Amino acid sequence: MTMEDSNQLGEFDLIARFFNRQSLIGNHKPHDISSANSVLLGIGDDCALINPPPTGYCLAITTDMLVENRHFFSSADPEKLGHKCLAVNLSDLAAIGAKPVAYTLSLALPFVNAPWLASFAKGLHQLADYHDCQLIGGDTTQGPLTISITAFGHVPNAQSLRRSQAQLGDDIWLSNVVGDARYLLGVERGEWQPSQVLDSIQARLHCPTPRIELGIALLGIAHAAIDLSDGLLGDLKHILIASKWNADIWIDQIPTSQIISALSPELRRLCTLKGGDDYELCFTAPEKNRQIISQISQELKVPLTRIGVITKTGSHDEFGKIDLIDSQNHVLPAELTQQYMRSFDHFQHES
Amino acid sequence: MTMEDSNQLGEFDLIARFFNRQSLIGNHKPHDISSANSVLLGIGDDCALINPPPTGYCLAITTDMLVENRHFFSSADPEKLGHKCLAVNLSDLAAIGAKPVAYTLSLALPFVNAPWLASFAKGLHQLADYHDCQLIGGDTTQGPLTISITAFGHVPNAQSLRRSQAQLGDDIWLSNVVGDARYLLGVERGEWQPSQVLDSIQARLHCPTPRIELGIALLGIAHAAIDLSDGLLGDLKHILIASKWNADIWIDQIPTSQIISALSPELRRLCTLKGGDDYELCFTAPEKNRQIISQISQELKVPLTRIGVITKTGSHDEFGKIDLIDSQNHVLPAELTQQYMRSFDHFQHES
Repeated sequence: MTMEDSNQLGEFDLIARFFNRQSLIGNHKPHDISSANSVLLGIGDDCALINPPPTGYCLAITTDMLVENRHFFSSADPEKLGHKCLAVNLSDLAAIGAKPVAYTLSLALPFVNAPWLASFAKGLHQLADYHDCQLIGGDTTQGPLTISITAFGHVPNAQSLRRSQAQLGDDIWLSNVVGDARYLLGVERGEWQPSQVLDSIQARLHCPTPRIELGIALLGIAHAAIDLSDGLLGDLKHILIASKWNADIWIDQIPTSQIISALSPELRRLCTLKGGDDYELCFTAPEKNRQIISQISQELKVPLTRIGVITKTGSHDEFGKIDLIDSQNHVLPAELTQQYMRSFDHFQHES
Repeated sequence: MTMEDSNQLGEFDLIARFFNRQSLIGNHKPHDISSANSVLLGIGDDCALINPPPTGYCLAITTDMLVENRHFFSSADPEKLGHKCLAVNLSDLAAIGAKPVAYTLSLALPFVNAPWLASFAKGLHQLADYHDCQLIGGDTTQGPLTISITAFGHVPNAQSLRRSQAQLGDDIWLSNVVGDARYLLGVERGEWQPSQVLDSIQARLHCPTPRIELGIALLGIAHAAIDLSDGLLGDLKHILIASKWNADIWIDQIPTSQIISALSPELRRLCTLKGGDDYELCFTAPEKNRQIISQISQELKVPLTRIGVITKTGSHDEFGKIDLIDSQNHVLPAELTQQYMRSFDHFQHES
């Protein structure tokens, strides 16, 4: 860990200024704070030290790397980028039901651009502060712009929302709406022309909301969950494979924004089923919990919609199959489903 | 976390093959193992889950990012590179006295090269297995070759070897020898011609040994420690700043290999004082512990040499000063010391 090298000569000084908040307040000693807090020792030593989680809880760990021109354009607003880099990690914590505690940041930068760094750090810190998630260390180096975050949270071991825990007959639920991020990406890439003013969905691609409160509220209520980063069908399939079931999805019940609702059925399905970057939660829960899930939805002010059901596999070996069913109760052709199920693969050109 | 996406189409399959050992043995369900083990849930979910450390222990966390052409040459042997990427992180765990438990790996690759990945994974797994440190998740993406690892270990909270704990009068110790890695790097870069066959020190640059056993043995014996990644003086200075002391260093007592001993005094000092990539431990301990430190050295078969002492600051505000003293008891000019103290800064050209 070298982020702490604020006493070195050179431009590490500058970087430390934006990320090491202890150095901002003139305290160059490692950050020792009361044991009531989870972080024993933050930025400023070879390692950070964090307290064990409370009894019955375990530590959830997730990591995501974002690369320029792959996950974001060079022109990306640095404040939103700072937000998004942490948000995609917090979204993984949400998907297992964990409460965020801390994170590390590794940053490769082609050169030091102070205004860019100040904005990036602002976006990062704002989201971190909202979730009381402390930056405890990291690394900075020269290189092609790459941002790697590892985030830590606490989750009650017995209730964690694992992908493998879906049960036969579970309802399949979706938070909020899907498809906006993919639609906007297509507009930015020139894949299609915008149908109307898209201001209302800008944040959905560039400034996603990790569903932390929802993940925690679903502990003991939902069986399995996943966050939607690579597309609804591809991500749902991870639950089906891990749990060894199939699913029916009622495609015309998938919730969307007005902008997505107004698209042609074909484009709407592409954006909602295969999209990506939604960072909503898809979860499964037993029928008996429908009422409490409605209450959670109202309390958190996050729409929760039933979009399908966990079904039995045809034979012992076949699982992970999804039947897409429209409002006329027709099952869509398997080839089409298969195409929607192909998540975004960073090593493949999309067809 | 997407490393687990072994059921996706595309070349993620290939990547998962090399890193997800569960997938190798045909078990596609998340890795549930007994609670006797630290890892509750490994690769294959939104997050990994790890058990709390034993009573009295806390979790040590460190992260390092390595970028092609910055931390390693494109021609680097991938097996040694795999070893080194993990070794530099384990070295940080060693420096605080932590026992490794698990790690995550984020990898940006320009393209998928199966033989390269197989060798890289081999080097990584060998070192991880030696220290019983489990790969619990990660991320893979297309991009300029960048490797980001976050490692986790257990350390008894009260005894952790923090930089801030050096005491006045402490002996300053160094493990093994320093200077080999910087000398070899200079040869590879064409900065100087090799004086002799360098086979005996190749591993010192490309395949460093993290001093895990030493760090653990020093718990309760040493006060402060740091691992030498950026150069002896620059790294020692971190201890002095954090502990608010100065130091005397007896430069002619700094242990070196025969190859470094045979160099001109000037080049020898550059390599040993300012070098970097040594991954030895520099630690401070009270005089009363000299005998037990000798015993530790013998038991672990790691040479440990006293190279200096922690001294008082001249005034309240001045700390982090190092006096370099030669065998004639002369103090080297401050300007020279200052030059040796400049650690490698990734955003600066070296003079």
